Amino acid sequence: MSGRPSRRQLFGYAGATAAGAAVAGGVVALGKDSGTEVVGRGVGPYGEHQPGIAAASPRHAELVAFNLRPGVDKAGLGRLMRLWTGDIVALANGRAAPGDTAPELAIGNVALTTTVGFGPRVFELTGERPPGLDDLPVMRHDRLDPAWSGGDLLIMVGADDPVSVVHAVRRLVADAQPFATPAWRQTGFWNGTGSDGQLVTGRNLFGQVDGTGNPTVGTPEFDTTVWSSDGPDWFRGGTTLVVRRIRLNLDTWDELTRSEQERAIGRKLSTGAPLTGAAEHDELDLEARDADGRLVIAENAHARLSHHSENDGRRIFRKGLNYVQDTGPTRESGLIFLSHQADIAAQFLPLLARLDAADALNEWTTTIGSAVFALPPGFQPGTWLAQNLLT
Amino acid sequence: MSGRPSRRQLFGYAGATAAGAAVAGGVVALGKDSGTEVVGRGVGPYGEHQPGIAAASPRHAELVAFNLRPGVDKAGLGRLMRLWTGDIVALANGRAAPGDTAPELAIGNVALTTTVGFGPRVFELTGERPPGLDDLPVMRHDRLDPAWSGGDLLIMVGADDPVSVVHAVRRLVADAQPFATPAWRQTGFWNGTGSDGQLVTGRNLFGQVDGTGNPTVGTPEFDTTVWSSDGPDWFRGGTTLVVRRIRLNLDTWDELTRSEQERAIGRKLSTGAPLTGAAEHDELDLEARDADGRLVIAENAHARLSHHSENDGRRIFRKGLNYVQDTGPTRESGLIFLSHQADIAAQFLPLLARLDAADALNEWTTTIGSAVFALPPGFQPGTWLAQNLLT
Repeated sequence: MSGRPSRRQLFGYAGATAAGAAVAGGVVALGKDSGTEVVGRGVGPYGEHQPGIAAASPRHAELVAFNLRPGVDKAGLGRLMRLWTGDIVALANGRAAPGDTAPELAIGNVALTTTVGFGPRVFELTGERPPGLDDLPVMRHDRLDPAWSGGDLLIMVGADDPVSVVHAVRRLVADAQPFATPAWRQTGFWNGTGSDGQLVTGRNLFGQVDGTGNPTVGTPEFDTTVWSSDGPDWFRGGTTLVVRRIRLNLDTWDELTRSEQERAIGRKLSTGAPLTGAAEHDELDLEARDADGRLVIAENAHARLSHHSENDGRRIFRKGLNYVQDTGPTRESGLIFLSHQADIAAQFLPLLARLDAADALNEWTTTIGSAVFALPPGFQPGTWLAQNLLT
Repeated sequence: MSGRPSRRQLFGYAGATAAGAAVAGGVVALGKDSGTEVVGRGVGPYGEHQPGIAAASPRHAELVAFNLRPGVDKAGLGRLMRLWTGDIVALANGRAAPGDTAPELAIGNVALTTTVGFGPRVFELTGERPPGLDDLPVMRHDRLDPAWSGGDLLIMVGADDPVSVVHAVRRLVADAQPFATPAWRQTGFWNGTGSDGQLVTGRNLFGQVDGTGNPTVGTPEFDTTVWSSDGPDWFRGGTTLVVRRIRLNLDTWDELTRSEQERAIGRKLSTGAPLTGAAEHDELDLEARDADGRLVIAENAHARLSHHSENDGRRIFRKGLNYVQDTGPTRESGLIFLSHQADIAAQFLPLLARLDAADALNEWTTTIGSAVFALPPGFQPGTWLAQNLLT
């Protein structure tokens, strides 16, 4: 199959960093070759990698974690993966999944992608655990709620339209019913379109441009960062996902001046440019000092501590979804932090530990949920998700 | 000011009923005349009527009801309306509202509209209550939760993008803080775009085409149905809004066959056409009988009982938003039912009573919240919301 489907998947995001890209508005032209089914808008279900990974955050997404029912074994998990594979192919093409009770809710112009993951406990059933895949240790600043943490399976459905997301999730949850029950659901949204319609990085609910420091999709650096190459054979072309639910205290954040906010981040609120630069994607100057001899990007600034040069050059591919959670009339605002990397222990954990120890943003953020998943590689027509692990 | 801004607001929706409309994709070209501030996409804040009424359901919306703080009087309400008017004008134009602490979250391509309403209790402070504006009586099938019911003030913010909705709501709630506190929040979504990108009526989470039987925006019948003309002077050009939170039991609904579902509705699931017709907007033949002599559109079919010919010709302008509400891993699905009419008691209440008594859909739906609001007419540059009531 070669890398072609995945290159096409990448195109949308690669274009996001270039002004006036041909994919403005997110419409991606897909060819009919390579067995990829063509949809009006979005990415097909097939490829070397699962869809929804090497791509910008979708406008809407829902993540559902499941716990396996007692007694479900490797063969049972394989049956579920075959069912889900059928659903995923249909839904990605705007068709009703087999057994769909509301088939008209499947429509084809919403760039729907479904991504599936396995929590650490799955590998007690299957063996061949990807390296570095363990529940994260509890950090000093964490206030984890079990209700938002862990899980044996994950589905992450993204689309331009929440009706389509809700409908797809309902189908996938229904098919999982004999095998697994939902443990948590997280719903988020992201706007990667600027005021003049061009694609942009997007902002979290603090108003920060969020996700600037990522490797560029399609580059060798991205591939090395994200895709597993030295784990078990079945996992080649897979990746891992860290899901952290981070509550943002907008009220205390808003008590800061804008320059205090910018100092905590190390970037300008207006453009996302580093405090040492002029444009969003300018490289950080971590040595620069102001007239008084103080570091322009402070020792504890988030942009410094999360920069790969502080992490032995190891990177992650960092995305997010905004969320709001209402308890009656009271609203909580936050970020569903998502990080892809080939190896969580090697790439993500040192970064997390450093941020937990010193990040200025810790004063206004609290992580209340945490989960890790291995995302199998993609599948091709005639094959199914994680087939090489489960047969 | 004449009716021109409102005609322009209507254009988007009027186009929705015509195939191949020039507004496909929802981009509405606005002129610079009439003092309407121009936004890249959407409707301006000014007009004879408030925006967000004579329009299709937005892709995303949030409704927040407030209770007035003790001691807030007519003058205080006027101060809040002046504050909100300033916010609404800025937000509709993609600008930061005064005092916005995250001004970059205000962007201009998201068709953001804000609509404001007053609950019945407000008129104990102001007098000049619109006719027919009273809390609805509790229906036999209602299972009302006070947490989703009532309220002194309403804001309804709609846009193409939930980040923009959340940001606008945060601003409006913050400005209300000295005067009123949130009583409930309801978040919903709607997809009025078909698979080939054309505008369509949209579907609820049962999969039904929902909202077909409305008067056409821009027609005299629409105007008579929606806009108040014989109430108090200040309310001329205003309307009322009924908000009903309706839980849908998808599980038991899905146990029906498709033909049982269609018989309960009286319309085809595929197209929304009446069971006596071929196309969505075909008129219902309420007398048609099948070969066995049975009514094709059953006595208790929703489409029959909600048809205006059964309601002494009185109509409503009916919209909806889908919602999902998660309690941990458990999901509730439903519809935020929205109905505009000049007079609730005269137009809506008889319809509600008839549906409560006999609607086949009652078996799979439960109303859990209910509220009514008077929506003041629109405002022009230099004036503010409900100024004629509050000065």
